[in-house]
Parts: sequence; C-alpha cells; structure tokens
Amino acid sequence: MRVRLELSYDGADFSGWAAQPGRRTVQATLEAALATALRIDPPRLTVAGRTDSGVHATGQVAHLDLARETWVEFEHSLVHRLAGLLPPDVRVRTAACAEPGFDARFSALWRRYEYRVSDAPFGVEPLRRHDTLGWPRPLDDQAMAEAAAGIIGEHDFAAFCKRREGATTVRAVERFTVARSGFLVLVHIQADAFCHSMVRSLVGALLVVGEGRRPVEWPAGLLRSRERVDAVPVVPAH
Amino acid sequence: MRVRLELSYDGADFSGWAAQPGRRTVQATLEAALATALRIDPPRLTVAGRTDSGVHATGQVAHLDLARETWVEFEHSLVHRLAGLLPPDVRVRTAACAEPGFDARFSALWRRYEYRVSDAPFGVEPLRRHDTLGWPRPLDDQAMAEAAAGIIGEHDFAAFCKRREGATTVRAVERFTVARSGFLVLVHIQADAFCHSMVRSLVGALLVVGEGRRPVEWPAGLLRSRERVDAVPVVPAH
Repeated sequence: MRVRLELSYDGADFSGWAAQPGRRTVQATLEAALATALRIDPPRLTVAGRTDSGVHATGQVAHLDLARETWVEFEHSLVHRLAGLLPPDVRVRTAACAEPGFDARFSALWRRYEYRVSDAPFGVEPLRRHDTLGWPRPLDDQAMAEAAAGIIGEHDFAAFCKRREGATTVRAVERFTVARSGFLVLVHIQADAFCHSMVRSLVGALLVVGEGRRPVEWPAGLLRSRERVDAVPVVPAH
Repeated sequence: MRVRLELSYDGADFSGWAAQPGRRTVQATLEAALATALRIDPPRLTVAGRTDSGVHATGQVAHLDLARETWVEFEHSLVHRLAGLLPPDVRVRTAACAEPGFDARFSALWRRYEYRVSDAPFGVEPLRRHDTLGWPRPLDDQAMAEAAAGIIGEHDFAAFCKRREGATTVRAVERFTVARSGFLVLVHIQADAFCHSMVRSLVGALLVVGEGRRPVEWPAGLLRSRERVDAVPVVPAH
C-alpha cells in the first residue's frame, strides 16, 4: 500500500534531494530514518519535485510503498518516531494512507516556489539570512511584477532551462508575482512543473529588470528566443 | 552629539549583549565595527535592554556619542559601511541623529519580547528552528492566555526574577498575550522594563499551565507569593 508524506527541510546543508553516493541528501536521510522507524530495508521515496542543492521546502510531498502490516503497526506512531530519528533540518509533517492511484510525482497539479530578496542598505535581517538573498542595490518591484506578468502562460522555457537531451522544456506558468513588504521583495511562481534551474533563472532575469539594467519586456523577449543567453544570471539557491 | 542606532541580531552565537573579555558579544562586535567604520577609538554603546545569551533582537535601540565632525563625515555612509564590516548575524538597520535628551536606556517607554513555541508532533519547522522552541506535548493556548491575563499590571515580580542585591523587582506588564497559528504558539509580553530571566520564567510558568500540570490561576498566585519557586522552569533563550 502507498503512504503519502508531507515534508519540510532546510536545504542549506543538503546536496539537494536526490540520493548520491558520499553526499548528504534529503532523500537518503529520509530513507534511512524510515528504514529504522519501520524496521524495514530502506524504502524508495518518490517526490513531487527534486529540489537543487540549497533549496528549502515546506509542504513538499513524497510517497513510498509499504507492506500493509508494516503500515498498520506504525500508522499512529510514525510521525513521532521520525521526529526523534531525523536531524532537525528535515521533518515529516504528516504520513497518511494515499488515495487510490496517487503518485507524488504524477498526481501533482502544480509546484510553487517562493524566492526572498532583501534590498535593505543594511543587508538581510539576521534571523532570515538563511532563506533571504541580500541584494546590494535598490530593486524596482513594480517593474519586476510587470516583467513577471509577461511570462505567465504555457511556453517553451528553453531560454531559462539547463539543456537536457530529449526532455521537453514546455511548461505552464500559472502564477508569477512580485510583492514588496518593506525591504523584502517576495517572488512567487507556480507552474505545472519546472525544468532544471528554471525558477532561479527567471528570478535572475527579474532582478536584472529590477535594477533597471534591462527593460520590463526583456524576460518575455528572451522566452520567445528559446535560446539560453549568458545575460540571465541564475540566482543562488538561498 | 548623540546617535541613535536600531539593531537586529541572531543571538545564537553571541554570549548576550554585554561586552565580556574572551566572549563574543553583540556589544563588543558592534563597538569594534563602529570604531573601524568611523576611524575612532571603540565607542561605548548604551542599549535599551541588555539581552541574555542566545536571545535574538529586531528593532533593539542603542546610542553612542560622537564628535560632530565624525558624524557629519559618515552620516550618509555609516549604515552601508557597517553592513560590510559586521558579521551577518548582527545588523545596524538605521543610524540617525538623536533628539535632544534622548537616552536609549532611560528614554525607552517599553520593551517587548516574543517567545515562539511549536507543539507539532513532528517537531519544529526546519527554517524556524533557530527562533522557535519545540515542545513535546500539546499546549492549551486558551489556558495559557487566561493565565497571562492574570499577570498584567504593576507588581513585584520577585517570584520570576533572579535575585540581585538591592535592585527593585517591581515592573509594569502592559501586555501579555498568547495566540496560536497552527502548531505555533506565540507569546508576546510588553513591560516598562524586565528584570533578569523574567520573560523566560513567565513563559515557563505559562507552559506548565499549557500542559495542564497547574491551574490557570497558578502564575498569578506565584506572583503574589513574591518567592522564587523551583517549580517555575526558565525556558531556554531560543
């Protein structure tokens, strides 16, 4: 039977999601804790979106398949047991029996990312420095918001994706907004799915516009070119 | 002339505010950066409230006295220079000429603290684990709020203060509230001033009530006794 997990993690000390030999990854850390908690061989987790190194998550969804007797035995204690077994930078918020046909990767209707930038002259608020990028110059959030609006829709995002053989780069961006609260500029983007480095390339393009170095129409123009250009910075996973 | 600074810091890696030989403190870190930025001998900072080891701050106020020519020279560049000189866990948000008669310690009308507790069965959200205490059992936030309301007013807080020879323990608590948002229990307390360990002792007493181990009236009863009792845990500075 299939179990649906809801996860949170601080990505700073992880080499991303996917298990890799010799690296500390979210997937390997979770699989090891699940094996101990459930007294089974390490299970295989399937995730809604494989995050890059340094990317944080709240409400990330994954699934694993278990023998029914294992689930019945640990159903009510699993979250609590994992809280004690996992390091504090990764948490399993919920663990529940999945609906029939559920698949964490293929059932996901959308993925949503938040990117936080501070353009305060004093830098980044100390308590938010782990999830907020400091930007040394003032940002025009109105221009960024207009540029973001021009990206919404289904397009070929090749200009903003790391090229991979054969994989489609067509994606549907449903929401792309920029809001300011004091010195904090919050970017939200939601799409059916993202290709590699797409979020951080799109935010990078918005920051170029926000600094006034390119016009508001620039990101949408890049999109139409379908060519990756060096002028688009990929902002760090922060 | 007198300069008013507004500060933020992550207290985790500081041994509190006050300068102590051989310890990393907020005061000494700021005084050293100010000396470099202003090309003067380390100035003496006066602060609105000397925080304990591990306590964070946002909007903490301090002052220092400067020669007028030094201020005129660095008035417009000081915040930016300090941003580059200070470590990322402490920031000077603003630096401005103080109003006549201003004193960061004696002009303060109130001090306000926030204490964050999560009673989630899965623990603390990874990105908030630096400023949120995990509590392993469910908390009754309604009972905590009622207990807090019974503390408001001007009282002798000796039961909640570390004894110091001769110092008054009479304080006026103007606001003491408990609010829940999901698994997060937020405690806010505002007073004219606090004596040593008072915030963390009061929160400790509320948590005992929140767990159901003592009745709602217990903290107010302790207050009337004016005797420090071992049953009040001092929660960690988190």
